[in-house]
Amino acid sequence: MKSDLDRLMKNHDLDAILVTGPAKHNPAMYYLTGGGHMTSAELIKARGDDPVLYYNPMERDEAAATGLMTKNLAEYNYKKLLKQAEGDSIKAQALRYQKMLSEQGIESGRMAIYGKVDVGGGYALFSALQELIPDLEIVGEISRNSMLLDAMATKDESEVDHIRKMGKITTTVVGNVADFLTSHQAKDEVLVDRQGEPLTIGDVKKRINLWLAMEGAENPEGTIFAIGRDAGVPHSSGNPDDLLRLGQTIIFDIFPCEAGGGYFYDFTRTWCLGYAPEDVQALYDDVYSVYQKIMAALKPGTPFNDYQNLTCDFFEARGHPTVKDNPTLQEGYVHSLGHGLGLHVHERPWSGSTATKNDILEPGVVVTIEPGLYYPEKGMGCRLEDTVWVTPKGKMEILAEYPLDLVLPINNA
Amino acid sequence: MKSDLDRLMKNHDLDAILVTGPAKHNPAMYYLTGGGHMTSAELIKARGDDPVLYYNPMERDEAAATGLMTKNLAEYNYKKLLKQAEGDSIKAQALRYQKMLSEQGIESGRMAIYGKVDVGGGYALFSALQELIPDLEIVGEISRNSMLLDAMATKDESEVDHIRKMGKITTTVVGNVADFLTSHQAKDEVLVDRQGEPLTIGDVKKRINLWLAMEGAENPEGTIFAIGRDAGVPHSSGNPDDLLRLGQTIIFDIFPCEAGGGYFYDFTRTWCLGYAPEDVQALYDDVYSVYQKIMAALKPGTPFNDYQNLTCDFFEARGHPTVKDNPTLQEGYVHSLGHGLGLHVHERPWSGSTATKNDILEPGVVVTIEPGLYYPEKGMGCRLEDTVWVTPKGKMEILAEYPLDLVLPINNA
Repeated sequence: MKSDLDRLMKNHDLDAILVTGPAKHNPAMYYLTGGGHMTSAELIKARGDDPVLYYNPMERDEAAATGLMTKNLAEYNYKKLLKQAEGDSIKAQALRYQKMLSEQGIESGRMAIYGKVDVGGGYALFSALQELIPDLEIVGEISRNSMLLDAMATKDESEVDHIRKMGKITTTVVGNVADFLTSHQAKDEVLVDRQGEPLTIGDVKKRINLWLAMEGAENPEGTIFAIGRDAGVPHSSGNPDDLLRLGQTIIFDIFPCEAGGGYFYDFTRTWCLGYAPEDVQALYDDVYSVYQKIMAALKPGTPFNDYQNLTCDFFEARGHPTVKDNPTLQEGYVHSLGHGLGLHVHERPWSGSTATKNDILEPGVVVTIEPGLYYPEKGMGCRLEDTVWVTPKGKMEILAEYPLDLVLPINNA
Repeated sequence: MKSDLDRLMKNHDLDAILVTGPAKHNPAMYYLTGGGHMTSAELIKARGDDPVLYYNPMERDEAAATGLMTKNLAEYNYKKLLKQAEGDSIKAQALRYQKMLSEQGIESGRMAIYGKVDVGGGYALFSALQELIPDLEIVGEISRNSMLLDAMATKDESEVDHIRKMGKITTTVVGNVADFLTSHQAKDEVLVDRQGEPLTIGDVKKRINLWLAMEGAENPEGTIFAIGRDAGVPHSSGNPDDLLRLGQTIIFDIFPCEAGGGYFYDFTRTWCLGYAPEDVQALYDDVYSVYQKIMAALKPGTPFNDYQNLTCDFFEARGHPTVKDNPTLQEGYVHSLGHGLGLHVHERPWSGSTATKNDILEPGVVVTIEPGLYYPEKGMGCRLEDTVWVTPKGKMEILAEYPLDLVLPINNA
């Protein structure tokens, strides 16, 4: 949790952190500033001290609105630094960092760096800075060992409010899509509009974007609305030209965030228009039953990956191949049970091959539970996903309820 | 241009490039793959060879859709690499990179890295890779010296089509906003709806998002719709609770991109509802006149920054302070004339303090021209911006025309 930052920095043996990049669509900067329209900024926090936000002069009002201590980057006289660096702009920027850090008393120890920026520029810049200040070890963390992702893994009530709000928006839009589909008629086994023209996946996706915007959300990572064989490939987002055929699995996986790049929600239903053929119904029944069993089994304080193993056991007992035996599997249960969710659509805690013993269902985490089965060669796939908060009291709470039904009735089907 | 990649790699003394991260909202990966729903991928291109795209198995269909040569990342047996790295996941990933590069015959020389990812993870990973392969110099470029941004600076016709399409969407939405505002009446100097309730900046922004979504666009970086003092601060995005007062400058700066994180457009108009007070009209007249003079002066093949100097001269001749004399200026002409635009809302060529002699208005570039004046203490600001393509024949073509008028007439004002 954000309030644990100093403690976690100590645990991770970090004396300081530095965050770089824009405030939007940059989880680390959003987390520490609350978002806002800053196209590029720097934030430095020494352990035990409040963070300081360095802003570009044109963005002073937005910087002030964060309520943080702020400082104008223009005060560092970049031209002079560039001269000192003999025209080497990477070195000039490193010199500026050195100055900023020194003003905060950060000259030795260990400092972690965060921020979604171009990796090339970042690599060059922080390599140059490391050379300038050999006594301060610059620490690059990868997600599974990141102090900041440790902090982010457990949410405070205000963060859960944001996610819950996104859950409400998500299920509202999912409801709109269901209503939209069921308001159509079928002709020759495909949905058609009032003019008799076939509806396409692309038509549906356009409306999803529209309804999300109406609710104040965006979907920077797109939406999966995939039918038939595409539904059998977990990350296939769906072919815009595909028609909406009856009796085929549709995987609808929607993971929007607050407009401006804030908190996400993640949600999946599998639908079949009109009716479900026997093999599709059997596929769904297996996923539904495993979903229910896993939901019932979740206990606070246990390793998240235990439930990945349990999910594999359940699916194997029903005759499906799973990733437990073959990590390159492309049929059966081919992915992990779920993941943490917050300012990233995927974050800690992890389940599956990326999980460690630190990925625990501790109070405060928000995770997705999303068992699924995929048979692309049979032209079908099924996944059910909800987002679950482990409350401070250890209760498992789905943050937005929505029916799990497979079949969407079509009037004349 | 993309077709110049091998030549530019040679100019920049690069034997290979490596691109990492998702395909969306990651300009480098989008540029080389054409987007698509890949949450994380790797792309390697040796000079003179076609690029190879490495995909996660769940995203094989999306990878195949790029038409590039592809390879499944799962084939590298991460578990084995992790064992070889004695559990150090950073080293394991570096080992995988080493293997991939070696298969492409890339073992020495210079390789640039690109991709918008977390800077910490990237720094750690590429530092580890550099240690593994000392004969291959890993080059991190910053934007003003980037080979890839060199390539991106000039657009081919298909890229210009994308930007032009976004220009059409942008001006359509701007027209919607103008129509929406002028359909209102004024009461006590503020716009009110049919129920007599005052309209807010937040109400307008919600509609902007909606109209953008309807047109198949998104605005990941937000929209500036700022009135009064906020209009006097170039990057202030506007306060959602502000009312729409007559006779005050509204800066409407809109920079959406194709849904899915593709090409941008960038456009600004300054509006005054109902009437323009004398000082506002004078401010506008100065900006309008400089805008027209600069547009008329632009010549292909000249340094972009020449026009920044010219803009400063023009504004100074009219009695306004400019950044030419004081880089930390907060009143007058406080920013640069414009910037390149493409898969980044800001990219090469640059004008202003970041410009170099390589920032030329050569055929193929797409740049914004956006002179402006800001007087926050007087509660006003004005900016006019259009996006201009320097055609292969050296003509300056505004990619989406829209009237420059200041006053939006309000019926009863």
